[in-house]
Amino acid sequence: MRIGILGYGNLGRGVEKAVNANPDQELLYVFTRRAPERVKINTPGAKVLHVDELSHMQSDIDVLIICGGSATDLPEMTPKYAADYNVIDSFDTHANIPTHFAKVDTASKAGGKIGVISCGWDPGMFSVNRLYSHAILPNGKDYTFWGRGVSQGHSDAIRRIEGVVDARQYTVPVEDALKRVRSGENPELTTREKHKRECYVVAEAGADLARIEKEIKEMPNYFADYDTTVTFITQDELDRNHKGLPHGGSVIYTGSCGDTKHVIEYSLKLDSNPDFTGSVLAAYARAAYRMNREGLSGAKTVFDIAPAYLSPVSGEELRAHYL
Amino acid sequence: MRIGILGYGNLGRGVEKAVNANPDQELLYVFTRRAPERVKINTPGAKVLHVDELSHMQSDIDVLIICGGSATDLPEMTPKYAADYNVIDSFDTHANIPTHFAKVDTASKAGGKIGVISCGWDPGMFSVNRLYSHAILPNGKDYTFWGRGVSQGHSDAIRRIEGVVDARQYTVPVEDALKRVRSGENPELTTREKHKRECYVVAEAGADLARIEKEIKEMPNYFADYDTTVTFITQDELDRNHKGLPHGGSVIYTGSCGDTKHVIEYSLKLDSNPDFTGSVLAAYARAAYRMNREGLSGAKTVFDIAPAYLSPVSGEELRAHYL
Repeated sequence: MRIGILGYGNLGRGVEKAVNANPDQELLYVFTRRAPERVKINTPGAKVLHVDELSHMQSDIDVLIICGGSATDLPEMTPKYAADYNVIDSFDTHANIPTHFAKVDTASKAGGKIGVISCGWDPGMFSVNRLYSHAILPNGKDYTFWGRGVSQGHSDAIRRIEGVVDARQYTVPVEDALKRVRSGENPELTTREKHKRECYVVAEAGADLARIEKEIKEMPNYFADYDTTVTFITQDELDRNHKGLPHGGSVIYTGSCGDTKHVIEYSLKLDSNPDFTGSVLAAYARAAYRMNREGLSGAKTVFDIAPAYLSPVSGEELRAHYL
Repeated sequence: MRIGILGYGNLGRGVEKAVNANPDQELLYVFTRRAPERVKINTPGAKVLHVDELSHMQSDIDVLIICGGSATDLPEMTPKYAADYNVIDSFDTHANIPTHFAKVDTASKAGGKIGVISCGWDPGMFSVNRLYSHAILPNGKDYTFWGRGVSQGHSDAIRRIEGVVDARQYTVPVEDALKRVRSGENPELTTREKHKRECYVVAEAGADLARIEKEIKEMPNYFADYDTTVTFITQDELDRNHKGLPHGGSVIYTGSCGDTKHVIEYSLKLDSNPDFTGSVLAAYARAAYRMNREGLSGAKTVFDIAPAYLSPVSGEELRAHYL
């Protein structure tokens, strides 16, 4: 299947790697809002085009994987292209999912295409696991822990503080909370009890470190509700030890069936958040293409897509080797 | 939806508990090959009937959950009832799944019904997780560990030895193997390196314990390929400490996307194997009923069923609360 990527940041590069690992997919085009000649990609043979070219390339692409930000890019882009292309995005602004779903659904149906939204690992694989667990054991409770991993939003927030040159923020689950949840104790946990935040900060020479640390720790929404540690390091140390974008986490479900208790845990340990998210998007792009070939259309989430659609392997082979 | 259970052993009782925990399901009938008046069930209002009654109850039941053994019961029962009822089973004789699938598919399609086979946790939820992981990261390897949990087949094998009164066998994953796999090392592991077997045995008074221990440890297929420990205990100790049927395990997948590595783990810790398996069957019974109401028919496995079908919650609610 012929794949196009819209947006070539960290996620776009992750999707590119994933598509190139899938023998049944070929990356043909990367679309960008920048000047195409300035964007260097890693796929020989694929072309970089300006996003405006999407107005007339409907017959050249089977699935368009949209790699934009959830704040402003995706709410506009995904509905815009959903009538012309099978599309897929990783929209993760939770409160706005119903609106986004409705817009994409209208456009996808009008064009007879499939539009998969909110795909990745959370929302995405974590969501699927929450659903499976609740459906199997209706008497239970799910807990989601994120990390240890880099939060780009929190890192950006630190960088906006006066006197800060660069920063990396790790979200870290609290070990004791994980233990209590896994034990089946079903605790009620506050924000502070679930996660802590570790900040590695490069400050300008002569900056007031105490003031920076205070501003971080008291920042509402981002840090005030957490136990936060701030460590000042050099740019060189940051580049050497904190350049990656690892992430992961666990969805833990504790539930009962009559008088017996059960614990279900799905966990991810990812070297690279964008590479793994890109891999999930590439697998669901396969599903979108196939569902559309079967005549289906409209907006879909990971909940609506049978697992077999994600795999290039035939039903017979799946039953023989994975069941 | 109106549920019938065929077969009332440990699994049948697990399904009964699960159905009674689901507000949208009602257990109406338990079918048995025994004399119905001798079977006492735990659901007031539900009736116990002889299995022969299934010949004429097509309009009284929405889904028939078949709780038989994979060796001789299910290969005969599931295809037999698949034309008349939406059916679901936990068939787990791996080598015979293609034949079983084909027979159920033919019958289900002839009757315009859905037949879900090989459902539970392995095959079942473990299978789904193997499929998702392989589809997301095609360059990788899956490992399945079972336990710590009771293997009824191995317990039965010990009980057939002369001089043995009762026995309980636990399958236990080897901690070092788990560690190596989770580290992403991708080891090649022998049978012996992955699991060990712990046997608790009640012997007849005066029995030759050394001979029993030797027969267990040298039993081909069951024990000879494993590090096996045999502990002789009294019937009283067995009844007090080993009456439950706990089980569980992990599917661990280690894969890469280009130059980054990722570990995906799905694990279960179950107080009761039959209760959890019964809960999975009840959730997939819901899916079978709904898919059939949409006009679908034929044999299905967990691979073919979108997660949303398992949940009683509406699409809007799922997107709002679980995505």
